[in-house]
Amino acid sequence: MNVSIIGAGGLTGKELISLLVHHPDFEIVHTTSNKSAGSNLSDTGVRYRKDLVFHKHEDPIPKDSLVVLAVPNEVSLELTPKLLEKGHKLIDLSGAYRLHDKEIFGKFYGLTHSSFDLMKQVVFGIPEIFRDRIKNANFVSNPGCYATSVITPLFTLSELRQNISGNVIVNSASGVSGAGGRTEDIGFTFTNTYENFRAYKVLSHQHQPEMEEYAFTGASTNRSKIIFIPHLLPAYRGILSTFVIHFDRPLEKQDFDGIRQKFRNEPFIRFYDNPEEIELKKVQNTNFVDISFRFSSDVLVMISALDNLVKGAAGQALQNMNLMCGFDERKGLIPV
Amino acid sequence: MNVSIIGAGGLTGKELISLLVHHPDFEIVHTTSNKSAGSNLSDTGVRYRKDLVFHKHEDPIPKDSLVVLAVPNEVSLELTPKLLEKGHKLIDLSGAYRLHDKEIFGKFYGLTHSSFDLMKQVVFGIPEIFRDRIKNANFVSNPGCYATSVITPLFTLSELRQNISGNVIVNSASGVSGAGGRTEDIGFTFTNTYENFRAYKVLSHQHQPEMEEYAFTGASTNRSKIIFIPHLLPAYRGILSTFVIHFDRPLEKQDFDGIRQKFRNEPFIRFYDNPEEIELKKVQNTNFVDISFRFSSDVLVMISALDNLVKGAAGQALQNMNLMCGFDERKGLIPV
Amino acid sequence: MNVSIIGAGGLTGKELISLLVHHPDFEIVHTTSNKSAGSNLSDTGVRYRKDLVFHKHEDPIPKDSLVVLAVPNEVSLELTPKLLEKGHKLIDLSGAYRLHDKEIFGKFYGLTHSSFDLMKQVVFGIPEIFRDRIKNANFVSNPGCYATSVITPLFTLSELRQNISGNVIVNSASGVSGAGGRTEDIGFTFTNTYENFRAYKVLSHQHQPEMEEYAFTGASTNRSKIIFIPHLLPAYRGILSTFVIHFDRPLEKQDFDGIRQKFRNEPFIRFYDNPEEIELKKVQNTNFVDISFRFSSDVLVMISALDNLVKGAAGQALQNMNLMCGFDERKGLIPV
Amino acid sequence: MNVSIIGAGGLTGKELISLLVHHPDFEIVHTTSNKSAGSNLSDTGVRYRKDLVFHKHEDPIPKDSLVVLAVPNEVSLELTPKLLEKGHKLIDLSGAYRLHDKEIFGKFYGLTHSSFDLMKQVVFGIPEIFRDRIKNANFVSNPGCYATSVITPLFTLSELRQNISGNVIVNSASGVSGAGGRTEDIGFTFTNTYENFRAYKVLSHQHQPEMEEYAFTGASTNRSKIIFIPHLLPAYRGILSTFVIHFDRPLEKQDFDGIRQKFRNEPFIRFYDNPEEIELKKVQNTNFVDISFRFSSDVLVMISALDNLVKGAAGQALQNMNLMCGFDERKGLIPV
Repeated sequence: MNVSIIGAGGLTGKELISLLVHHPDFEIVHTTSNKSAGSNLSDTGVRYRKDLVFHKHEDPIPKDSLVVLAVPNEVSLELTPKLLEKGHKLIDLSGAYRLHDKEIFGKFYGLTHSSFDLMKQVVFGIPEIFRDRIKNANFVSNPGCYATSVITPLFTLSELRQNISGNVIVNSASGVSGAGGRTEDIGFTFTNTYENFRAYKVLSHQHQPEMEEYAFTGASTNRSKIIFIPHLLPAYRGILSTFVIHFDRPLEKQDFDGIRQKFRNEPFIRFYDNPEEIELKKVQNTNFVDISFRFSSDVLVMISALDNLVKGAAGQALQNMNLMCGFDERKGLIPV
Repeated sequence: MNVSIIGAGGLTGKELISLLVHHPDFEIVHTTSNKSAGSNLSDTGVRYRKDLVFHKHEDPIPKDSLVVLAVPNEVSLELTPKLLEKGHKLIDLSGAYRLHDKEIFGKFYGLTHSSFDLMKQVVFGIPEIFRDRIKNANFVSNPGCYATSVITPLFTLSELRQNISGNVIVNSASGVSGAGGRTEDIGFTFTNTYENFRAYKVLSHQHQPEMEEYAFTGASTNRSKIIFIPHLLPAYRGILSTFVIHFDRPLEKQDFDGIRQKFRNEPFIRFYDNPEEIELKKVQNTNFVDISFRFSSDVLVMISALDNLVKGAAGQALQNMNLMCGFDERKGLIPV
Repeated sequence: MNVSIIGAGGLTGKELISLLVHHPDFEIVHTTSNKSAGSNLSDTGVRYRKDLVFHKHEDPIPKDSLVVLAVPNEVSLELTPKLLEKGHKLIDLSGAYRLHDKEIFGKFYGLTHSSFDLMKQVVFGIPEIFRDRIKNANFVSNPGCYATSVITPLFTLSELRQNISGNVIVNSASGVSGAGGRTEDIGFTFTNTYENFRAYKVLSHQHQPEMEEYAFTGASTNRSKIIFIPHLLPAYRGILSTFVIHFDRPLEKQDFDGIRQKFRNEPFIRFYDNPEEIELKKVQNTNFVDISFRFSSDVLVMISALDNLVKGAAGQALQNMNLMCGFDERKGLIPV
Repeated sequence: MNVSIIGAGGLTGKELISLLVHHPDFEIVHTTSNKSAGSNLSDTGVRYRKDLVFHKHEDPIPKDSLVVLAVPNEVSLELTPKLLEKGHKLIDLSGAYRLHDKEIFGKFYGLTHSSFDLMKQVVFGIPEIFRDRIKNANFVSNPGCYATSVITPLFTLSELRQNISGNVIVNSASGVSGAGGRTEDIGFTFTNTYENFRAYKVLSHQHQPEMEEYAFTGASTNRSKIIFIPHLLPAYRGILSTFVIHFDRPLEKQDFDGIRQKFRNEPFIRFYDNPEEIELKKVQNTNFVDISFRFSSDVLVMISALDNLVKGAAGQALQNMNLMCGFDERKGLIPV
């Protein structure tokens, strides 16, 4: 299957190319980068099976190629309708097509949505939740990195979600690559990041409405509010999310035995006995979401970890691409 | 005033010596370190106004000197009764005399308390709460580093504490010096700490009962449970604590204006307008607790930061020592 | 080709397994780890195409498998003669069979060499120097990480080596994974490594005689002494080596044009125009040696960088294995 | 003695203010910062005994105050002649008045020197070399950070300098605060610095001519060339310099016993038995230069370490200020 990557020069685009090196069934045929247009992929230090030239975003895209959009939200808003019209299968890594509430989209993204009717056809790209729909989708919106680290673990709570009482509290900490660290923002200088730790976008991060929209999929009644507080780590890769959740009844060991059983065949979810075992090191450069639980009466502490550039972006995109094209979803992600 | 430091070779002891260099009214006359007994302070790289020899813990301690205990809990349990009997003013940096519930002490510290009657006379060393009692105390128990980062900010909530609804959720992250990183534990190798992040002692940290015991001092009715989750940062110094607290009514700007007003003269509390301004960099090597608030309806996010070795240990001890001896409590901590 | 990895639980063994995941022509059939015997590879967090059990070193090794030794020097001294006798192709990553001077070996390794006659048949595994001999070798000794970062760049100087005047000065800096940081040595705690930098084994590192033995291969007359000073970086991966070399005549641009031309087809050597472009980031997780030159009259500054776990260990081993088995030497290392 | 600090908002200016907090005989009366003019010192997070307002550089400077210039080279060139004319004692932390060769100055600094005649009266501020001249100086040029880490150790070689054969090779590594890391240069983002290491300004650093000019002060004949290669560490503070020097005769233990003896009373030079003991941790936040030697026949490896912001800038400036004003040179730097 031919693949075109629009916005291939950013962190996520490069990560995806690195993953596709070992994928026998996808062939990258076209890459764009407005910033590096005209130069070669190999000049950026990224190696693929063949060298590729960066085109401009508006250059013609090979017909029948699956298109991956790794561009800013406003660029996605502009390109997506055109690409779908031309009949491309499309996976969008931006946040442009994740929220079904136009007002909330406007509030969190500061943009007017110019093609909101596409929200009827887009499928949200978390395979553990929407696997069957993704298989048949032409247009998938790949989730945010923090969003994945919150939605997938909450989804594994299954029926327990109906017993959640009150708000779900999530404190997350991310390395700079997940917090926008590619920019030359003064907030990401060595001096301001190293030997430091701080929260940012407290109660205002754009991934929070995405979490609330999808984390309770399939849960019949309860829709908790999610209190989300991201923090910036003096590290490069990985997100660890610590949840505190109250329930309307005491929890029991069996509640979690059932969960482990139910998701035992998910190829990219790993459960650990103790939350102290969840750490960035175990998930860096992998497509896994690691999860563990500890409860005390009616309070649950759940901790999850993932690599923001893999399961939080390019890896999950590849998992979705595999599904959209009828391949084994693990291909290119773990040895199969 | 003469000072004897028992356990002067550890991180906290050394930090205290460094602070006392610039204190005109305290004179260190005696230092002990069982590990380094016989060697000189200057051999450890720490410099004081004069060189000092490390004695053994059991060597005679100069009469009339104020004694600082910077030793493990079990050593404090053994030495404290003897030192008080000899009439020394005493400040204990261990956890041995912080909890008034013997059973909880046993559970969290794994020790049998051999002199529990001393709990009647000990004063808990948070000046912002117990200033007057500390001034008249002979025996002060200096709080834990995480505990200070939680108790002091919660105390500033004042009357608002009566309106807290449900549990107080605290996620803290500490550099290795606050998490026991001086030991040669494999958990603190460079390989396992750098480019990593993880929780530890989830729902079981020994500072949690200390927080519950003191954070609601003076609050007439409510005593919330505190859900406390510490994390280990790939950094050396500082603790940042992120609180999520629900209230039984919507919060208002005036609630916090009152708090800022009430504590405006506290020399070591600094309030910031935005929680995003709270960071480790601002408090490292200072005795400040930095605090900020953000609320949305009935939910409050409060963030605090302090240096675990200063306000979380040696600095707060010096603040207490100043009070116990009738000196300006800021002496040796900020230019006065 | 079947592969057995003896000592598969260490840093180098794990790195090799990760590389072999994507190699179509090697199949790992046997792994040992005395420390983890009985447990599974997947328990260590490393994934291969199938799960593998760790056997004991002395367990029977599948016939006809190529054996990789990733064990300490003394274990290699014991196992190598037996494995060769059984007819295995063998590649040894330890330092046991690198030096042809028994006395120097004893001095730098502190060991008595029990099978020194094998030095007649062993081939030193730097493909850029000994490619043809490696192709026909049954027994290859894989070079040390620092050694590779010094020998290969010096070898590229070709005829210029005859004009070297005096000693070659090399200052190297390595991340902890190249300096023995896997051990639980107090020298590798976070506290002693982070925000620190220091030299170690000054003028006494065991890779120095290896450099002197091989760096001048093919140079007719001159054999300079190498002054080698390794340093420990607060980082995890990579070695950067900075050479200062004096010549018996002024250098000219053409000298280096020739070098670049001569080695332009080496798949894992990359030349850069400016030494400021050489950095750890560019080589981490790759099998490249990056090299650049700057000269001023008769003084040359050459800088090289490589990943100590890849080109400095497992990657170069795989390159050698490819050669020994008649495969494209780039297989499993760069997309081909 | 009253002190005015011109350019008090930069890293060096702030460091000097922090040091002056504990100096009983200097009183800061005036601070300027063109960038922060109008704001208060306390807003920058730096605390002094009283709060100070940042003026503009051109605002009137209190008469009779000792002036510290912590401004860029071109600003110093403009302000220095005026300030000297007004009769201020002056210490300049820029590079504007260090080199006595106008052509070399132009080449390395890219500036035309507009007041080169002042070079006749300026004293170079390394107390270990020019103590007596500094005592009587009105105008001191404070050395560069790398320069101090090279000149002072070389100076301690004393008569041995006459036996140096050939070039002196110096590889230095600095944390970002010594390499210009305060700027928002993309070279100093977290992403480009963390887990990285690289050389910069190879053979072209502006401190190199300064080293050659002063390192051989008092050595009757030999003036070696210095080959200087600075590197950027993933750390914040400190410079470690590794020297390789050849001699015209075999070295002996007595050579270095004499050196240790000769400088044993220097308050800020510390000699260690082994070069492996020299590390950034020991000198951070101190005014010490740590030095050690190892030789093998006629080759010497010398390693030095200092804190670039203290002995490499503000600390050495304070040492010079003490001397210029007749105070104990250790005041404010170590407990006296």
